Amino acid sequence: MNRAIRTDLAVEAEQLWWESAPDTSALPGVRAEESAVRGFSVTTVEILDARGEAALNKPVGKYITVELDSLVRREENTFGDAAAVLAETLRRLILLDSTANYLVVGLGNREITPDAVGPAAVDHILITRHLKQKLPEAFAAFRPVSAVCSGVLGTTGIESSDLVRAVTDEVHPVCVIVIDALASRSLERLCRTVQIADTGIVPGSGVGNARQALNRETLGVPVIAIGVPTVVDAATLTLDLAARTGTQLDAGGFGEIGSMIVTPRDIDKSVRDVAKLIGYSLNLALHDGLSIEDIDLLLS
Amino acid sequence: MNRAIRTDLAVEAEQLWWESAPDTSALPGVRAEESAVRGFSVTTVEILDARGEAALNKPVGKYITVELDSLVRREENTFGDAAAVLAETLRRLILLDSTANYLVVGLGNREITPDAVGPAAVDHILITRHLKQKLPEAFAAFRPVSAVCSGVLGTTGIESSDLVRAVTDEVHPVCVIVIDALASRSLERLCRTVQIADTGIVPGSGVGNARQALNRETLGVPVIAIGVPTVVDAATLTLDLAARTGTQLDAGGFGEIGSMIVTPRDIDKSVRDVAKLIGYSLNLALHDGLSIEDIDLLLS
Amino acid sequence: MNRAIRTDLAVEAEQLWWESAPDTSALPGVRAEESAVRGFSVTTVEILDARGEAALNKPVGKYITVELDSLVRREENTFGDAAAVLAETLRRLILLDSTANYLVVGLGNREITPDAVGPAAVDHILITRHLKQKLPEAFAAFRPVSAVCSGVLGTTGIESSDLVRAVTDEVHPVCVIVIDALASRSLERLCRTVQIADTGIVPGSGVGNARQALNRETLGVPVIAIGVPTVVDAATLTLDLAARTGTQLDAGGFGEIGSMIVTPRDIDKSVRDVAKLIGYSLNLALHDGLSIEDIDLLLS
Amino acid sequence: MNRAIRTDLAVEAEQLWWESAPDTSALPGVRAEESAVRGFSVTTVEILDARGEAALNKPVGKYITVELDSLVRREENTFGDAAAVLAETLRRLILLDSTANYLVVGLGNREITPDAVGPAAVDHILITRHLKQKLPEAFAAFRPVSAVCSGVLGTTGIESSDLVRAVTDEVHPVCVIVIDALASRSLERLCRTVQIADTGIVPGSGVGNARQALNRETLGVPVIAIGVPTVVDAATLTLDLAARTGTQLDAGGFGEIGSMIVTPRDIDKSVRDVAKLIGYSLNLALHDGLSIEDIDLLLS
Repeated sequence: MNRAIRTDLAVEAEQLWWESAPDTSALPGVRAEESAVRGFSVTTVEILDARGEAALNKPVGKYITVELDSLVRREENTFGDAAAVLAETLRRLILLDSTANYLVVGLGNREITPDAVGPAAVDHILITRHLKQKLPEAFAAFRPVSAVCSGVLGTTGIESSDLVRAVTDEVHPVCVIVIDALASRSLERLCRTVQIADTGIVPGSGVGNARQALNRETLGVPVIAIGVPTVVDAATLTLDLAARTGTQLDAGGFGEIGSMIVTPRDIDKSVRDVAKLIGYSLNLALHDGLSIEDIDLLLS
Repeated sequence: MNRAIRTDLAVEAEQLWWESAPDTSALPGVRAEESAVRGFSVTTVEILDARGEAALNKPVGKYITVELDSLVRREENTFGDAAAVLAETLRRLILLDSTANYLVVGLGNREITPDAVGPAAVDHILITRHLKQKLPEAFAAFRPVSAVCSGVLGTTGIESSDLVRAVTDEVHPVCVIVIDALASRSLERLCRTVQIADTGIVPGSGVGNARQALNRETLGVPVIAIGVPTVVDAATLTLDLAARTGTQLDAGGFGEIGSMIVTPRDIDKSVRDVAKLIGYSLNLALHDGLSIEDIDLLLS
Repeated sequence: MNRAIRTDLAVEAEQLWWESAPDTSALPGVRAEESAVRGFSVTTVEILDARGEAALNKPVGKYITVELDSLVRREENTFGDAAAVLAETLRRLILLDSTANYLVVGLGNREITPDAVGPAAVDHILITRHLKQKLPEAFAAFRPVSAVCSGVLGTTGIESSDLVRAVTDEVHPVCVIVIDALASRSLERLCRTVQIADTGIVPGSGVGNARQALNRETLGVPVIAIGVPTVVDAATLTLDLAARTGTQLDAGGFGEIGSMIVTPRDIDKSVRDVAKLIGYSLNLALHDGLSIEDIDLLLS
Repeated sequence: MNRAIRTDLAVEAEQLWWESAPDTSALPGVRAEESAVRGFSVTTVEILDARGEAALNKPVGKYITVELDSLVRREENTFGDAAAVLAETLRRLILLDSTANYLVVGLGNREITPDAVGPAAVDHILITRHLKQKLPEAFAAFRPVSAVCSGVLGTTGIESSDLVRAVTDEVHPVCVIVIDALASRSLERLCRTVQIADTGIVPGSGVGNARQALNRETLGVPVIAIGVPTVVDAATLTLDLAARTGTQLDAGGFGEIGSMIVTPRDIDKSVRDVAKLIGYSLNLALHDGLSIEDIDLLLS
């Protein structure tokens, strides 16, 4: 696998592995399957053991990817369908218990558009923990949900992982759900793919760097990660092109490229739209019997 | 004292006490003094004991009020002078230690203009804790400062006090500095007065309601509170008017008034300006030898 | 009529007139009637001639006021009902012609919350003029609509009326629809009342000051004005209170009050909500056969 | 010249021409010269006639490019130096007359970060036209300046060129100054280069498409264009890479690339910074004897 090509998506890591080993017939320690749900393509990549971890450079666990292509085509009612598919996928991974307490975390920097998916999604989460405490009967139909945006190291001086652990220890949720922007290898996935994983998130990717991970080891409870690719590293795009065309790159000519990203021209709107979709999906997953219209009303 | 007239300012509580007891010659348990510093009026109200607490309905401690009137008149260089006076006042209350670690907290709701002073001030704080950890020599001249915005119960589901205590336990500062919007009794103080107190903050004001306080008892370290009045309750304005004019109010006619506030017409800009002033003052107070221009450069 | 009590609402000006002339049996030159439409109270004040103009200090024309009280109570489906009532009211005043061209203008300062209703409403307008020009068949079902925000004198250096006239002369609409924030006399109307008038707007109110008016005389086409009260002048509130209680005011004590306003505590959200309602209503009025869901989809 | 490689910068068009004609010794109809001013590299490309127009695909006129590299390195006082160099450059092209009236136009969509340079720069312009009209003596030292943001076709339904012409006809400036985001060929120029031209702007670039141009022909007065490259088309980056490496591209594999852009990772902050620089430079150019500190004070 070409590790210089950066991707946070397990489905792409698997594809890269096959590209790098074209003559191999099996990828040991990894199980992948694809299906179609309500017209959306859903891919599950399961990393089973250390062999899979080594091959895909991601920890053992389930990574489910939903492709939102039809959302982009603005077909009628697609928002509701996409939210339903994501909610069903989330319910496959989140342990739902009627008395349990859930903490949603928006990672990333709200002031940097391609990094704002997490905080923007949190704006669409129904916050119910305090209401259930004060009016348990009126809110009997809801599970208690709280949410925070962790900010970023540069604006808080505190590692996101430390801040989230402190809040987790305070709130005692049965499960933490983190939402973050990802990097992808392919342009066509930008703001159109959602990855849901039961492994938590290891910022900076890779199996190492455990200290800053947001996962069961560091937070003490299961961590579900919802991620959306919003950028392709310009370096990745270049390397990918070079690899496909068999070109030898002259690194000197692309010195600036390290700090560059490739995004959709309408990234501001795309991030806003996908953040809303994630917020609504999570509301549908965490509470029983809600409709999109109910959420509209409750958030208004 | 007319407790229906709401104020978060000790200097106004003292004034109300005198108004309610015009024939008294002493306010036991309270010491007040006024001075002028660089042309700014600075008033210190010190509540010394339980008698003072009962009289002013605020906990024992020092409340220093700086009047920013000349700032409003846009005199040249006033920003720098006001920041210097506030920084000096902060240094009278904050224990400065070269190895200590400071946590700044912006209270309030960023989305509601008159409540946004705290979060807006945090945007102007130099965040140095992580830099000192990674590059101790390059940042030797700075004290380690971290900052969070606690959000509000309605958008997080978590009491601000719980969230700040969790972060305090994680970061272990020697002192927490909280910044919040206040209610005042008088229109002429709106966005023009800064109160700095060494008592922390008891949201909802008053000595009771200890659970949600942000003070040495709940956080375990000294808590300095910086507050700016941004609203007068419409009810307070009405009551105040009635009291001054000797009118008997017909409560029925003002049923709507409870949810109304009085603010300056240019509240958006006023909040932005005073938040910047507080952020800069705190930077000057927490680090040695900085100038306004240095902060401009470091925050840019 | 007490002209020191400021209101931009004809329905309040009429009420003030009756209060100032309690023994009179008729208000000549004015016709007023109230009705209920879909549960909303709708009041039409028609100023018929110069006597009515003099009495209410507003130009001849129709002023229809819709009370949105039930919207505030968050009843289900109220948004759709309120939008339908406003759309029907607009259709009573706007000449609809299948080939005509409409210009919507958001007046006011987007950066000052209580003044932002106009620009915020424009964000919800379906812009179709250019689409009809380029794809006339695909957009056959829509009327051509364009929109501008005029900004304010302080940020453009150009009178709103001059700027709107220049754009009107360029676009040649059959009708200009201006949206603006108003001042009201009564707290309970804030962000809950919409006034629709066929007289245009005379900024600063009153019949005089013709140069800066946005009306048929200055723009050459009919001007429909949609206004929402978002503030009560603090001075008006005080005077009103004094008048009701028979108090003689000591002006000296309220010197600061001139630059103060009274608004709902949640003004940011209230303005956002009513601006969306106005935008949707106008879309329903200007195009045939649209639903709220269609607009959601087209604006997304 | 490879016309598939998109650039709005004359200096890059010239470079591309030489790359495409490596054996030629002269570029007829074009004069180019480079100099250093206060440590900044300043390049003037002058297109003299139809031969130059054809070679560079830009209209006859002067294009001055200032490189801001040192700004990026955060050297002390660089902001002031850069603003001074840009102001001097602007004064080479703008006819300054003490009684004349200037109109500044921010082009582009404020909601799309890389397109927001124009509107964001207008936020830093001193607006003086109305002040000079009302208080001619107090503002004797200033030239009358007004400003508008034209919005974009999708949000107004009106071509920017039509809207600006309507305002120009209303305000009668001696000169219109338009500020816009550009596309560049090279990553290292993004948000670091400012091009100032006396030719106005032809949106969509190229000599044709005259109807929507903002220039002396369409507006009737000289048009100075200030542009900053904020994006590289992803397609341009790819083509450029392919050209440099002699690769034959398989178009099929890059179908998505047309709607993608390459920007700096910190584009939000970069746009904000360069917009402020342009606003300040223009203030220095249009008024005599101002300092950066004066502008700080006047805009606060």
